[in-house]
Amino acid sequence: MKEIKPFITLVGAGPGDAELITLKGIKAIREADVILYDALVNDELLEYAKPDCVKVYVGKRAERLSTSQDEINKLLVDYAMNYGYVVRLKGGDPFVFGRGGEELDYAHAHNIETAVVPGISSSISLTGLQQIPLTYRNIAESFWVITGSTSETQLSNDLQLAVKSTATVVVLMGFAKLSQIVAQYQQEGKNELPIAVIQNGSTQEERIVLGTVDTIVGQVQSAGIGAPAIIVLGEVVAKHREFAQVMESLKTTVLSS
Amino acid sequence: MKEIKPFITLVGAGPGDAELITLKGIKAIREADVILYDALVNDELLEYAKPDCVKVYVGKRAERLSTSQDEINKLLVDYAMNYGYVVRLKGGDPFVFGRGGEELDYAHAHNIETAVVPGISSSISLTGLQQIPLTYRNIAESFWVITGSTSETQLSNDLQLAVKSTATVVVLMGFAKLSQIVAQYQQEGKNELPIAVIQNGSTQEERIVLGTVDTIVGQVQSAGIGAPAIIVLGEVVAKHREFAQVMESLKTTVLSS
Repeated sequence: MKEIKPFITLVGAGPGDAELITLKGIKAIREADVILYDALVNDELLEYAKPDCVKVYVGKRAERLSTSQDEINKLLVDYAMNYGYVVRLKGGDPFVFGRGGEELDYAHAHNIETAVVPGISSSISLTGLQQIPLTYRNIAESFWVITGSTSETQLSNDLQLAVKSTATVVVLMGFAKLSQIVAQYQQEGKNELPIAVIQNGSTQEERIVLGTVDTIVGQVQSAGIGAPAIIVLGEVVAKHREFAQVMESLKTTVLSS
Repeated sequence: MKEIKPFITLVGAGPGDAELITLKGIKAIREADVILYDALVNDELLEYAKPDCVKVYVGKRAERLSTSQDEINKLLVDYAMNYGYVVRLKGGDPFVFGRGGEELDYAHAHNIETAVVPGISSSISLTGLQQIPLTYRNIAESFWVITGSTSETQLSNDLQLAVKSTATVVVLMGFAKLSQIVAQYQQEGKNELPIAVIQNGSTQEERIVLGTVDTIVGQVQSAGIGAPAIIVLGEVVAKHREFAQVMESLKTTVLSS
């Protein structure tokens, strides 16, 4: 009988495009006895696994029946004890609102060794793919990544500070709160601040809407954009190659209405 | 004669470990006619290039003679015009203080088409490899990435807002300003806030110092830590598996001195 050595590696699967995983991530998938994977993980990545690898879907998505975090923690430990090498394949990076920390804590409480393979976070990469630079000399010296989905129903208090900064602000899982977010910028007088909403970033279904704090809610509705989407606020958004053109057409629309 | 089709792709090489580049990044390197690469890029990545690929070192590092950004921009365009497919291989992610935006602007001004392959930014990954979760439910709802090296010599004004937030704050290229950074947290009364300094992250030479706002400057001096290093401030740092033990030994040191 093969001796079981329980081990858990959290692997960031990247933002959606199957080629935006790291070499190290692929290596881990190849060696895994069990893979527990999320809803936003690209299925193609599972093809790197050994033929006898056990693949377990534990997808969580807003407003859907899904495996709870407690259950996932238990499954991770159970599979590691019974099968050996478990890869926890998570969308983006394991620690960017991925609750990877809780999974590690639970594993360590059960004396299971762990490792982490970072992933390409949608917070950084989806703007990059659209050639929106997160930072730009003399325009944005920092960027702030915030979740729209805190434990409470209200917006993160950090956003009140963020609106006062020159940081590029990226909101993940915040699409449902777009109006609230925009309202905070309006209170700060930042009505003209450029903003982008990117849906299904890095995939074939990617869509982007460019606008300003004042115009974005209407634009997103017209375009029929929905979750999963990230929201990016900051002067750097104006660096998008189509931004000037979009602003022109918005003006025309207003004039003709 | 082969027709030249000028094209430039910015590729993020990741934080240092040669396996922390994406599959898409490797593909771009394999196809490149010319690669312009930075000081912090792992040399092993150049081995994926075609035998006749032209490899140009344009490393920039503080306090060293190096190629200026203007020169890099010109080189990119010149090589693209004369050789065709140029890969600009940059440490971390091209847009996280990488001045990738300026390179794109220059290329577009010369009507050269471009693409971007995001990279694993040290700002997210080095904490992850050390199993410090950047975000953690009910502890940190956001993270803020700031450069210590702005165009001016002073600290970014954004840091004054950051110290008031519950965000995990990551400072890149800020090692030389550690005392100034720490002083801002002390003014806010956050003397006990956990802090980590990670040098040469993700490489064989990686070193980490864990401490608090009040203790870190002395600890870093004793340990002989230097740049390149990132600074991480936030309650999540206490999640590092050795943090409690380090705090114990600091207490002992104080008692016995």
